[in-house]
Amino acid sequence: MKQKMLVRFLPHNREIEVNKGDNLLQAAMRAGVYIQASCGGEGVCGKCRVLVEKGEGESLPTPKISEEEFRKGWRQACKTQILSDLEVRVPVESALDKRFINRARERVNAGRKVTYQELESLVLGWCFHPALQKYYLEIDPPTNGDNRSDLSRMLMALKKTHHFDLVSVDSQILKKLPFVLREADWRVTVTLAQTRVESQLGEHQLRGSRRPKLISVEPGKTTHEHYSIVIDVGTTSLWGQLLDLNQRKTLAEASDYNSQIQYGDDVISRIAYAQRPGGLVKLQECIVGTINGIIRELQAKSGMDLDRVSHMAAAGNTVMTHLLVGLDPKYIREAPYTPVANFIPPVRARELGIKVGEHVHLYTFPSVAAYVGGDIVSGVLGSGIYQRKPLTLYIDVGTNGEIVVGNADWLVTAACSAGPAFEGGGIKHGMRATLGAIEDFRIHPVTYEPMLITIGMVKPRGICGSGLINMVAEFLEAGLISPNGKFNAERSTPRIRSGPDGREYVLAYGQDTATGADLVITEVDIENLIRAKAAMYAGYVTLLQSVGLTVSNLEQVVIAGAFGSFIDVERAITIGLLPELPLDRFLFIGNGSLLGARLISFCNEMLDDGERIARMMTNVELSENSSFMDNYVAAMFLPHTHAEEFPGVTRRLAESQAHHSSQGAQR
Amino acid sequence: MKQKMLVRFLPHNREIEVNKGDNLLQAAMRAGVYIQASCGGEGVCGKCRVLVEKGEGESLPTPKISEEEFRKGWRQACKTQILSDLEVRVPVESALDKRFINRARERVNAGRKVTYQELESLVLGWCFHPALQKYYLEIDPPTNGDNRSDLSRMLMALKKTHHFDLVSVDSQILKKLPFVLREADWRVTVTLAQTRVESQLGEHQLRGSRRPKLISVEPGKTTHEHYSIVIDVGTTSLWGQLLDLNQRKTLAEASDYNSQIQYGDDVISRIAYAQRPGGLVKLQECIVGTINGIIRELQAKSGMDLDRVSHMAAAGNTVMTHLLVGLDPKYIREAPYTPVANFIPPVRARELGIKVGEHVHLYTFPSVAAYVGGDIVSGVLGSGIYQRKPLTLYIDVGTNGEIVVGNADWLVTAACSAGPAFEGGGIKHGMRATLGAIEDFRIHPVTYEPMLITIGMVKPRGICGSGLINMVAEFLEAGLISPNGKFNAERSTPRIRSGPDGREYVLAYGQDTATGADLVITEVDIENLIRAKAAMYAGYVTLLQSVGLTVSNLEQVVIAGAFGSFIDVERAITIGLLPELPLDRFLFIGNGSLLGARLISFCNEMLDDGERIARMMTNVELSENSSFMDNYVAAMFLPHTHAEEFPGVTRRLAESQAHHSSQGAQR
Repeated sequence: MKQKMLVRFLPHNREIEVNKGDNLLQAAMRAGVYIQASCGGEGVCGKCRVLVEKGEGESLPTPKISEEEFRKGWRQACKTQILSDLEVRVPVESALDKRFINRARERVNAGRKVTYQELESLVLGWCFHPALQKYYLEIDPPTNGDNRSDLSRMLMALKKTHHFDLVSVDSQILKKLPFVLREADWRVTVTLAQTRVESQLGEHQLRGSRRPKLISVEPGKTTHEHYSIVIDVGTTSLWGQLLDLNQRKTLAEASDYNSQIQYGDDVISRIAYAQRPGGLVKLQECIVGTINGIIRELQAKSGMDLDRVSHMAAAGNTVMTHLLVGLDPKYIREAPYTPVANFIPPVRARELGIKVGEHVHLYTFPSVAAYVGGDIVSGVLGSGIYQRKPLTLYIDVGTNGEIVVGNADWLVTAACSAGPAFEGGGIKHGMRATLGAIEDFRIHPVTYEPMLITIGMVKPRGICGSGLINMVAEFLEAGLISPNGKFNAERSTPRIRSGPDGREYVLAYGQDTATGADLVITEVDIENLIRAKAAMYAGYVTLLQSVGLTVSNLEQVVIAGAFGSFIDVERAITIGLLPELPLDRFLFIGNGSLLGARLISFCNEMLDDGERIARMMTNVELSENSSFMDNYVAAMFLPHTHAEEFPGVTRRLAESQAHHSSQGAQR
Repeated sequence: MKQKMLVRFLPHNREIEVNKGDNLLQAAMRAGVYIQASCGGEGVCGKCRVLVEKGEGESLPTPKISEEEFRKGWRQACKTQILSDLEVRVPVESALDKRFINRARERVNAGRKVTYQELESLVLGWCFHPALQKYYLEIDPPTNGDNRSDLSRMLMALKKTHHFDLVSVDSQILKKLPFVLREADWRVTVTLAQTRVESQLGEHQLRGSRRPKLISVEPGKTTHEHYSIVIDVGTTSLWGQLLDLNQRKTLAEASDYNSQIQYGDDVISRIAYAQRPGGLVKLQECIVGTINGIIRELQAKSGMDLDRVSHMAAAGNTVMTHLLVGLDPKYIREAPYTPVANFIPPVRARELGIKVGEHVHLYTFPSVAAYVGGDIVSGVLGSGIYQRKPLTLYIDVGTNGEIVVGNADWLVTAACSAGPAFEGGGIKHGMRATLGAIEDFRIHPVTYEPMLITIGMVKPRGICGSGLINMVAEFLEAGLISPNGKFNAERSTPRIRSGPDGREYVLAYGQDTATGADLVITEVDIENLIRAKAAMYAGYVTLLQSVGLTVSNLEQVVIAGAFGSFIDVERAITIGLLPELPLDRFLFIGNGSLLGARLISFCNEMLDDGERIARMMTNVELSENSSFMDNYVAAMFLPHTHAEEFPGVTRRLAESQAHHSSQGAQR
């Protein structure tokens, strides 16, 4: 456990508990204390000056703070690490500011965010038991009296040392076998893949009813190096993790844009491209190329030996899964929208062009329907909602928004095309949630100056999906935009100006950005976000209606999605993306797609659960559902056309509006 | 049943029962009646003139018989079909001839030759139940209300129509699936491969405990076309058969020399070649090239559609099996002689370069040891000796001579390098047993003129293995060669002359041969045959000794080998290749290697028996066995150095010698 510190901000008189070593600017953001900050936390704008009145922070003198100021306690918040309990005074430059201080929304720990290890405990009844196991063998060399085949003697050693009988063998190992055995002086490590059992039995019968398959032989003792690579194959981005199959650990993470993007932003345009001559092959090569890049990055980050990867699992939507394994998704686009297959047998990764050992098979999560893919099945598995009683809404916020409603007894699912806005796609300065993306954002309610923090606290480079949600929510609460998403003509600030794409707000001027150019958010960006959130909201409302339920029946909301963990629930409710429910009903699981893939890497038996989930889910087609269109149109408003669905937000916005008017009048 | 006819030969007064339509020259050969014949039965030498005294034969006038002679009843035996009971007078041109007439050895139906269908009845407890089955499906097309995946709907139809559940799927079928289904208007034929069960159960449980795999989808109804190709992969020759998996029939046969021959005659030289750079790949390509040629020939002969081949099984010796699947046999040549693997998992035939559908897997029979291969396991399976009580000697006479001794309780096995003589290799005018090969041979005991019949009754082109054995036996009985295999200086005939390779006997002069050149058998050829037969004989005698038995303990001798069915048992005993035992103990099974491969094509469950046999056999290494060398040297004599091992042959040869001397004295 990290040591806890208490920081008190003055004149707000607001306290927040932090970990020793936390950044002071981030602590202020979390505490709901506005400090102007334009450079993302890099320290170059010099605007986040604060006075440390009590306690100790580690901070170096900077050009923006004179030596004398430093001696007096002035610091740049973004450059200060908290080393003891602190009292920090934030300079308040106008009377107006002061009056807003105590109105500043108190941030709560909105939505439970859990670590991967905690996440894995969401699922009941599994143990750490990878489908692939490595065993070290010391084999007796052949003699005149005992000249059994190389394979026989290896299998005998496996039986003798590790008690495996009836092992089948991948014929690919045979070509090198005699040479590996002799060069390694008959000391080798073998990898066994255990086939699944159809039904769950006690450990003893389990062993008996399986037939392990020997898939790899490596010289020497390599049991300590035993890895799995799991990949979330998204339409816009791919995310990969390198897992240690000995220690149930994540060794590295990496991600990249899906290089298919050059052939279209969404699955529909990818399917269209696949119909061109050579298009399918091209798209398959793209996705494999991206995966190979991610694998290289995982390798670089971890220093692992690629030959020690034993297993791969991927989860993606139905179209991405088709394209990955080279199936033509043609009929997914045409009514009645049929995939080639929902359950795809494991394929040798190298046959697809993935650069791993030839023994590595790629398991792809089964899909449910044309637009409900293995990513969602993986997430439902990983979140354990298929095992529990509470009525749960599971949403994967992404380009293809996928929604599940149900519990241990039943599961219904649907998909809606939200577009790429949540992943930074179609946004003028949109980017993935990587170094330099603005992820946290506040706006001064009077001056409309921004407080922005980037990932990595470097100069801002662009806006990621969660940052975009935060901005639009802040704009709305500040009255800077109207419920229709347009900049409010009544509010003026030099930061709002006309740009080539219409009106825009300048998040950071060139001197404070990584690119040297102004970083803006446009009305078109905001409209794209509204379309995306409306599709998601209409999707789950329609799905609930299809089973005779409403949002108020939900006992739990599980939020998945590559950027899910960064969503601020309150702000997502503010813009009408998430339903207005008590905050403790929200649970973030992060990348759900990776979650199930991790789980099956760590536990062989969970494969069956995954396939059971895929079979159990009932798909509801939204694309031809007239209620969906009605719900969508109604949701094209901030937070929603029907104010009664967001009573709390509506009330707060009204109060803010009234307050602002009165402030404006006083001004 | 064919109509039976009786032919009586005069003045011999010998009768033989034949089928209506049989050839008269062949009937004489079978009856042990010598008729001079030099042109193999083509009809051009005109020497086989006979007088039909009673009955009717169909024969056209030929230039060799004048019209008047024809009216009187003169015929060329080789051009006469037997249409009724006949009395046929053979012209006897000298008093000497007459005195030999009744000494002519009466031929018996030596060794039981059985048809494939009878052969399959040698094995107990199997039923016609191919591992691969085809099923016709009429699938419901997708609708808006039912848009399950293409694969799902196909599997549902399979379940509904044919009650298969839990079917796994070869991922290779998926790429084409949506197009095949739609182009065929949802009417397709699928091929299911049933995995084996570990233990034999009743039919009901059998179904329950298997998981069939769907490996192919073809448009339309093709259930009536469902084939297997079985291949005997010999060091010298390959033999293939096309089997009908619906009707348990052989549709075509084909064979060819193993094109690896260019890189060496025997397995040792092939292994040596495999060690050169690129050698292994070259050898693998050779063997696959030969297989592809055989497949083309099977296709041409049967008119079958290659796409309808569902299955392949091959049996070969250990080295050939290694080379076929691309394994380096390097350590088979070096003591202690270890193969890479005896059990090789089925491989996709196309991955090896075999030109069949991509769904076709090649099953290779398991081997026992470096020099006891899957061909012998296949033969032991096909002959059923592993199921029965009588002590049996099983020999596969070929380049690599393989020997098994045992019964249902135990099996020991050994291999000896006999060289290629039995397959026509290393013989000056040797050839495989195809059109124009001299297969049957008699010699006039006084004139030493030949009576030869070729395969197809065409002009002779060469000598096949069985012909070679017949010749050497005839020469020995006639005293034309001595027990050491050299031409006997005491016997003179113009047919024995000096040739470029030493002394030789002219089987046919140029005017009567297919090539136009004289066709001869040389002393070197005879020596090669003696080496080959000595290796075989020493092999099984040594193997019997290793378990404390002798030849006299044998209750049955099963003779396998591509040319096995053509061996004349008596003559093989005469030269000392086969042991001197009552003739009814010999059983010919022909190509044993193909036999087991046929059996597993027709009956899924027999795979287990094959693997059980491979595990059950104990291998005895002859190459380092000193008794083997002693036995080999002792066997380098006709019939054998130890006359007591061949009392009957020794007695007959002595009588013949005595008779001849007395004849010579009379002359």
